[in-house]
Amino acid sequence: MGVGALIAAALLFGGSAGTAALRHGAQTSPIYGVQLPKGYRDWVLISVAQEKGRNNDIRAILGNAIAVKAFREHRRPFPDGAIIVRLAWRYQSSARNDAVFPAPQSFVAGAPTNVQVSVKDAKRYAASGGWGYGQFEGGLPNQDRALAETCFACHRKLAVTEPGADLVFTSYSP
Amino acid sequence: MGVGALIAAALLFGGSAGTAALRHGAQTSPIYGVQLPKGYRDWVLISVAQEKGRNNDIRAILGNAIAVKAFREHRRPFPDGAIIVRLAWRYQSSARNDAVFPAPQSFVAGAPTNVQVSVKDAKRYAASGGWGYGQFEGGLPNQDRALAETCFACHRKLAVTEPGADLVFTSYSP
Repeated sequence: MGVGALIAAALLFGGSAGTAALRHGAQTSPIYGVQLPKGYRDWVLISVAQEKGRNNDIRAILGNAIAVKAFREHRRPFPDGAIIVRLAWRYQSSARNDAVFPAPQSFVAGAPTNVQVSVKDAKRYAASGGWGYGQFEGGLPNQDRALAETCFACHRKLAVTEPGADLVFTSYSP
Repeated sequence: MGVGALIAAALLFGGSAGTAALRHGAQTSPIYGVQLPKGYRDWVLISVAQEKGRNNDIRAILGNAIAVKAFREHRRPFPDGAIIVRLAWRYQSSARNDAVFPAPQSFVAGAPTNVQVSVKDAKRYAASGGWGYGQFEGGLPNQDRALAETCFACHRKLAVTEPGADLVFTSYSP
């Protein structure tokens, strides 16, 4: 269903159904209204990581120019406009590489799982430590409000364990 | 010892000692004469990987514009001028992140180990499948010829297991 049809449906079925239908086609995350930034896949690498457990992924953290500069200069808190994007892919053994390598040892990125975006705006996101969050799957924002709430619920814990981190887990890897 | 002192030593001790001394300060890899490309740390991410075993690292593969375009267009062989840079860091458990995460599950990039560079030039590097190689530590090329020989010795195996790969292990991760 296109945007036109969604708007038509909103007009036809009234505000409530319309809001739900339009949200299904929304380009921004719930709560925070964060968009997937244009061109983020070309941004500079901040670092890499691997999550075991339920995530079982391998990930890369990229940043826009404002974020990268702050990371490299160890500047905290991050200035407004900093955007950090975390890409993740299934963590998988590479039979292809292991056929060549001296031992079974190679793990690579499989299918993409999701992309998480953190946007710094101290005023707009004052209620969540200055950060707005969004999770994107296949280029579209996940509309689950409960999921969106887990972002700050987890990041805020860093304020206790490492007050100087400005709620950011990643460090820059040279 | 600075470059000036190295040159002075070369003049003082003659050609042979001088060559060895100057090689110690060389900016290019043995065999291939590959340099660490200027600005590579700002290049676009191709993918990530993790090596267990003796390497025990987590890694990111970046590419220059020519390489990234070829990866994204699935173009093989790579055109001349393509440069692929593999950065690696110690793979380490993050007690810092695990203190916040729901379970001990977070692994991150520790200290950098080395940077490996592959340069495509079908004519110049015809004897090694069109690729020149170099390994850099702390920004300087490792001068061990035997180490440099292991690059092509391993990559060439891909010509057997996957002839269409143009000797490149990494695939692009969207």
